[in-house]
Amino acid sequence: MSNLVHPLSSLVTSIPHDPMLDFLDKVDQTDDLIDLGFGDPDFAVDSSTKKAFKASIDADHSHYADGQGISALRQAAQTFYNHKYACGIQTPGDILVTVGAAEAINLALLSLVEPGQGVMIIEPEYSQYSTSLCLAGAVKIPVDTAGSNFKLTADLIRSSYEKAKSKQIDPIAIIINYPNNPTGRTYTQDELAALVQVFKELKLWVLSDEIYAEQTFIGRHVSLYPMLRDQTVLITGLSKSHAMTGYRLGFAIAHGSVMQAMRKIQDTLVTCVATPIQEAAAAALNDDPDAGLKTLPAYLRRVTKVTNALKNLGFDLSLPQGAFYVWAKIPASFGNDAFDFCLRLAKTARVQIFPGSIFSETSKNYVRISCAGSDANLDLALQRIKAYLKNN
Amino acid sequence: MSNLVHPLSSLVTSIPHDPMLDFLDKVDQTDDLIDLGFGDPDFAVDSSTKKAFKASIDADHSHYADGQGISALRQAAQTFYNHKYACGIQTPGDILVTVGAAEAINLALLSLVEPGQGVMIIEPEYSQYSTSLCLAGAVKIPVDTAGSNFKLTADLIRSSYEKAKSKQIDPIAIIINYPNNPTGRTYTQDELAALVQVFKELKLWVLSDEIYAEQTFIGRHVSLYPMLRDQTVLITGLSKSHAMTGYRLGFAIAHGSVMQAMRKIQDTLVTCVATPIQEAAAAALNDDPDAGLKTLPAYLRRVTKVTNALKNLGFDLSLPQGAFYVWAKIPASFGNDAFDFCLRLAKTARVQIFPGSIFSETSKNYVRISCAGSDANLDLALQRIKAYLKNN
Repeated sequence: MSNLVHPLSSLVTSIPHDPMLDFLDKVDQTDDLIDLGFGDPDFAVDSSTKKAFKASIDADHSHYADGQGISALRQAAQTFYNHKYACGIQTPGDILVTVGAAEAINLALLSLVEPGQGVMIIEPEYSQYSTSLCLAGAVKIPVDTAGSNFKLTADLIRSSYEKAKSKQIDPIAIIINYPNNPTGRTYTQDELAALVQVFKELKLWVLSDEIYAEQTFIGRHVSLYPMLRDQTVLITGLSKSHAMTGYRLGFAIAHGSVMQAMRKIQDTLVTCVATPIQEAAAAALNDDPDAGLKTLPAYLRRVTKVTNALKNLGFDLSLPQGAFYVWAKIPASFGNDAFDFCLRLAKTARVQIFPGSIFSETSKNYVRISCAGSDANLDLALQRIKAYLKNN
Repeated sequence: MSNLVHPLSSLVTSIPHDPMLDFLDKVDQTDDLIDLGFGDPDFAVDSSTKKAFKASIDADHSHYADGQGISALRQAAQTFYNHKYACGIQTPGDILVTVGAAEAINLALLSLVEPGQGVMIIEPEYSQYSTSLCLAGAVKIPVDTAGSNFKLTADLIRSSYEKAKSKQIDPIAIIINYPNNPTGRTYTQDELAALVQVFKELKLWVLSDEIYAEQTFIGRHVSLYPMLRDQTVLITGLSKSHAMTGYRLGFAIAHGSVMQAMRKIQDTLVTCVATPIQEAAAAALNDDPDAGLKTLPAYLRRVTKVTNALKNLGFDLSLPQGAFYVWAKIPASFGNDAFDFCLRLAKTARVQIFPGSIFSETSKNYVRISCAGSDANLDLALQRIKAYLKNN
């Protein structure tokens, strides 16, 4: 359509260009490339879950589900998240079943944020957040953690808040994500308590994206939801805990009028989540609640292996506290921008890892290595990286 | 949450109250109610489709799919819609796989319509359209067909357009839906050609919702897409053709920058449609292309039966030309508003049908009877309606 009858909406033009695409475009057509870029777990879905999924299909459960989600799944989720993280979800009515955590974030933003209002985003950032802000017409307030060893602190939030205010931006919400993608940082109960204090003080809605909760390597994941229930939407789902990225099953958890608002938008946006997927998810939570713990040793083994290997190669990094990514500063000899380093690594060594510029302007000399793939791939990739660094 | 830290977004408050909820709330708790309200086909999904669905699960296709949809499904859809309706879809790249037709409508509106711009909506109306307009911040321009025997005409579009202009509303798009829910009207090639003429003249984006294409009782469905490809987004999916409402599988079909825009928003909104659902849908289109034709005689038998029965009872109506609803004016003795009639019918005769006020302010003396359910239910419901009318 070269001659459009009307220009496309300003929403379309407001969506920032995704720097990941620039990278992928350049890497495209590389043969025999090992992908350590994307975060798609290589584990299979548990057989009991697959059995329930197929039983739902055989039972002809091919009809519309309730827009909020089937009761069996919402009950299973209440039990699961309360048992695992003491979330204190009071009723299955506080749980909305969504098309992955992605839709849940959009529902929360659309319900809570007025066009023109500010939303604080932790940088380095999982890039969907910025585009979701565009959908809600919200203004991004970056909270850059590069100077605080990638940890969010009360002071950092306060100073970013004041800076926004001085620019006439009204900050009304914050999206936090821990264990964090890409940095691997997570938070203890005490650290969260300090954050909660400032969230209360600044009257911020909190979108707490805890999708990597089960991939916590130090102690147990602590959920922010029970600590600040009146201001929090808990975003979670089964993509990482149950290696079900391609089933697209998420949750938005909140109560009262916030839940009612999200539900209203859900009805219009997608009607409901596919019924057999919901039945599979209910089985996953009920019959395989420790799927995440079962895969945890493998993720820990992988991130440890990659961390040690990169340390030996001159990268600056520490072991991630959670999620399944290694976040590492490239050796100074490769310069201050890892984009070219990653590009050459892909083209020459045939290993795809992502440059830090995809996640933050101020972390360009970092790389993210996904450890979601198989050990065999990871081992081969590390061999290739070592050989490449030896020769360059 | 009685004390919100900030009020909910104006989007939430702008979503119009759904009059269907008022009706359902009042009918709720009625025992042994036969539902002829909702439009969820009672047919089962074909066994070959279910087999492919289960094979996808067994093959551990539980990983992210391409955001635009898997190639096999887009190819199958291109073949299906080109073969069935001569859509002239030029490449699988012009097809976006969505979470039902609902998401497709939202993607099109968000891509094409600027907040404050006007979108023409045919009344009586399938109520999702109005709430989708809210999401895009668009202004609704009603095009009331009650005075033209529920048929859209070029003159009607022109006069509604001029009326909007006189109110300083800029109409840039129209959503049409045929075969129409709730009225059952559809359009011939010549009628569509006349509409296309005015769409061109007024430079309107056209969202052509043809989800009921396979439920066409007079001749074959004619698609608007090939007649006005540079201005049209074709909205369709498998919910009605393959009785897969609960699988949530739709398509938005468009080309060039419009497709690119929808794709961009899709990435942010839901990431992708669940992978096994897409594989099931590809099998449905490839292996069971005539699913819709197989169920057509049943739908025709049902709507004919209901039409004849209601005629004998003093309702004013004609046989629907498509979809699977009967749209009928209640006998004058029951007044000018079918809401109370439907309520009493539900409470006393235990049959749920929907009052016209759910679909349009000017069709309050109409009712919509869904013929998507089983013949047995329909027969029993008709007996109950007859008995009720005899005694009232």
